[in-house]
Amino acid sequence: MDKDFSVINFINIKKSGKNHSREEIECFISGVCNGSIKDYQISAWLMAAYIKDLSLDETTWLTMAIANSGDVLDLSHIEGPVIDKHSTGGVGDKTTLIALPMLAACGVKVIKMSGGGLGITGGTSDKLASIPGFNLSLSSEELVSMVNKVGIGIAGLNKNIAPADKILYAIRDTTGTVDSLPLITASILGKKIATGAKHIVIDVKCGSGAFMKDMESAKKLAAMLKKVGGKCGVTVLPIITDMNQILGESAGNALEIVEAIVSLTDIKKSRLMDLSIMLAANSLYLLKLTESVEEGARLVEEKLKNGEVLEKAKRWLCAQGAPEHLFEKPYNYLENSTHLECVKYNGPDVWVSELPAESIGEAVLGLGGGRKHKDDVIDYSVGIRSFIEVGTKVTNGMVIFQIHSKNKDDADRVKNILLKNVKFASHETVQMPVLLDDVLFSA
Amino acid sequence: MDKDFSVINFINIKKSGKNHSREEIECFISGVCNGSIKDYQISAWLMAAYIKDLSLDETTWLTMAIANSGDVLDLSHIEGPVIDKHSTGGVGDKTTLIALPMLAACGVKVIKMSGGGLGITGGTSDKLASIPGFNLSLSSEELVSMVNKVGIGIAGLNKNIAPADKILYAIRDTTGTVDSLPLITASILGKKIATGAKHIVIDVKCGSGAFMKDMESAKKLAAMLKKVGGKCGVTVLPIITDMNQILGESAGNALEIVEAIVSLTDIKKSRLMDLSIMLAANSLYLLKLTESVEEGARLVEEKLKNGEVLEKAKRWLCAQGAPEHLFEKPYNYLENSTHLECVKYNGPDVWVSELPAESIGEAVLGLGGGRKHKDDVIDYSVGIRSFIEVGTKVTNGMVIFQIHSKNKDDADRVKNILLKNVKFASHETVQMPVLLDDVLFSA
Repeated sequence: MDKDFSVINFINIKKSGKNHSREEIECFISGVCNGSIKDYQISAWLMAAYIKDLSLDETTWLTMAIANSGDVLDLSHIEGPVIDKHSTGGVGDKTTLIALPMLAACGVKVIKMSGGGLGITGGTSDKLASIPGFNLSLSSEELVSMVNKVGIGIAGLNKNIAPADKILYAIRDTTGTVDSLPLITASILGKKIATGAKHIVIDVKCGSGAFMKDMESAKKLAAMLKKVGGKCGVTVLPIITDMNQILGESAGNALEIVEAIVSLTDIKKSRLMDLSIMLAANSLYLLKLTESVEEGARLVEEKLKNGEVLEKAKRWLCAQGAPEHLFEKPYNYLENSTHLECVKYNGPDVWVSELPAESIGEAVLGLGGGRKHKDDVIDYSVGIRSFIEVGTKVTNGMVIFQIHSKNKDDADRVKNILLKNVKFASHETVQMPVLLDDVLFSA
Repeated sequence: MDKDFSVINFINIKKSGKNHSREEIECFISGVCNGSIKDYQISAWLMAAYIKDLSLDETTWLTMAIANSGDVLDLSHIEGPVIDKHSTGGVGDKTTLIALPMLAACGVKVIKMSGGGLGITGGTSDKLASIPGFNLSLSSEELVSMVNKVGIGIAGLNKNIAPADKILYAIRDTTGTVDSLPLITASILGKKIATGAKHIVIDVKCGSGAFMKDMESAKKLAAMLKKVGGKCGVTVLPIITDMNQILGESAGNALEIVEAIVSLTDIKKSRLMDLSIMLAANSLYLLKLTESVEEGARLVEEKLKNGEVLEKAKRWLCAQGAPEHLFEKPYNYLENSTHLECVKYNGPDVWVSELPAESIGEAVLGLGGGRKHKDDVIDYSVGIRSFIEVGTKVTNGMVIFQIHSKNKDDADRVKNILLKNVKFASHETVQMPVLLDDVLFSA
């Protein structure tokens, strides 16, 4: 660290609403990593930055300082167009497992390092870890070789990748400084840049079950990700998608793997499939492999129908250690919960008007299927299946949820949460489209 | 702590500029003291409170929560009118040693717990500790009995008094959150209320050598101390005094004791004596013992002339352990520095235009006479004597400073600091009055 750098001066600058220089931000992140700046000084700065905001330049410098705080992967040995995909965190979001094989089938290489989930939002690496034998501990060389071989590679986030982000995030999480757009932007992009990404499609979740509760803040975050990404030399394509209800019909690690597998083997139109196609199609367009997003969507649907997507998915999962016959009989390989309870609807005909994603997420967390704290151990077998969406007509005696739990007590508790939060109307209801905004050309 | 209290919610409330309830603030301070709230959460809240401000009610509740965080002294066994005196921290300020005997001579009981100084501002307990044998470790019972016997009692700040303030202050000191008016107010009054004070005269220092650099912020602090004090059930009388130059002619612990003794034995008009009289006279008026401040000042001057003030000072210091003949030959009893250096002025006739208090304070700190960090050991013998004030005419060859140091190297370094910072003019200059504002009737 620069010997003239004073952390108190640094805090005072932001406290009084002034802007930092690039060098100051680099000194700060260096002090965060080497321990010379204390936790309570970091949190004081984070709060000042939260309230007084960071400029576009400051956010860019913070992003780069985070990216350079540890190892930076070199992906130059990957042959062909490469894309990374990120989601700001949703409930039941298994699009990564579907969109990646779609992209691989279209000749795109997909590499991803994924951290574990926290709170109500699941993480792709946790879902994959529920597959017996699946190996997420790939070195960067193994990951590159995996991508060259099967088109896709996913690894758990190495602890030497963007260590500054881990320190900052742990403090933000307990000091009310998570929901700051510049801090979110620097955290997302800092990690992605460290893992070598040059083209990133980012699914900005919006709604009651997401960080961004409304379109206004989601659009702001999308615009900031795109702008800061550009200043850092990476092309970012953010799309804004609905997280007022869960995506697909399940939430819970093993259940989501099963749903993804079923979606790929028994192809049907659904919100989950629509979004996966949009993510893949936008990525193809971003990489200039198609003339339009629509052309990309048609190409993906063709690869789905002719079985190439399924083939890519099988090859990839097997290459990373999944059982050979996982796709034929997923329930035989994945852990099943010890208790299964069906929740029925009793009453006159109604239509589902609200099915809040956050209450499904809370329910899964309550069953032990997620992490309240970062060191919690996950039970992969538990989760919720929902047989309704906003707009579904519900009749007397119909099973609306399945609860996969450790025991009946857990199931009863969660049943109450679900029944308290699902809302019905006596008239027909309409759900929001899954794709809320495509900000490819905006901002 | 209330089981429903969430520190993250608490931080979020202040972060978004909303107000806390009394109960929330009590839960927060309780969590600060029992360690359930972490340093980095405390600092995040402090920064939010700094930027978003605290209301008068919140400041009052914080003050009371700090006061009640440890032992609260019971002064009901003191006979007669009782006053406490506080200063926000100055350089060379030995008024406590002069004003207290003045008050005692007028029949007022003075009790004071004093913390050690930090940074450029000295603490009364450090100055007294430079007297051989002086006992500052009085229990609250011993303190009350001392006050009943000789009219005055001073003890070091017990660690069980307002422990929350110690924790908060240590964090504020390293996170840029010291200079917040509500936090300063709660810190000052919280400690004073815990030591049983009901009537407090507060010397709000204003100028380059003080926390409050300008009249506007000094007036705001004075008004807040008065208002919050009132809401806490204590009568606060703030007066605003000049701290653009040092008070009196010396800074450094033993040197200041000598100056106070000389001021009491060889009474002369000076800024130091003027301010001491004003502090005592305002206190007498606050306690309704005189009809006006002017009447109080006349009474104090009478007691000075007839020797009663000197007598009270001797009795008090001896009762707390000072040598019997300290007042006759102070230099014989106090520690002398091993090196003494005189700084002369060479040049044409000039007038002193600036003599910044902070550079004298920095010089004393540099000699080892103060604490940079709270565990530093103080050298009582070192310090600066200044033979000039703003307005003094200086002629060729005149000694303007005396440096009392450990060695010649220290003296040379400090000499350069002093000569760099003292400013001269070729025309007559005028100094500010020591009493800048008397806010007895305002706010």
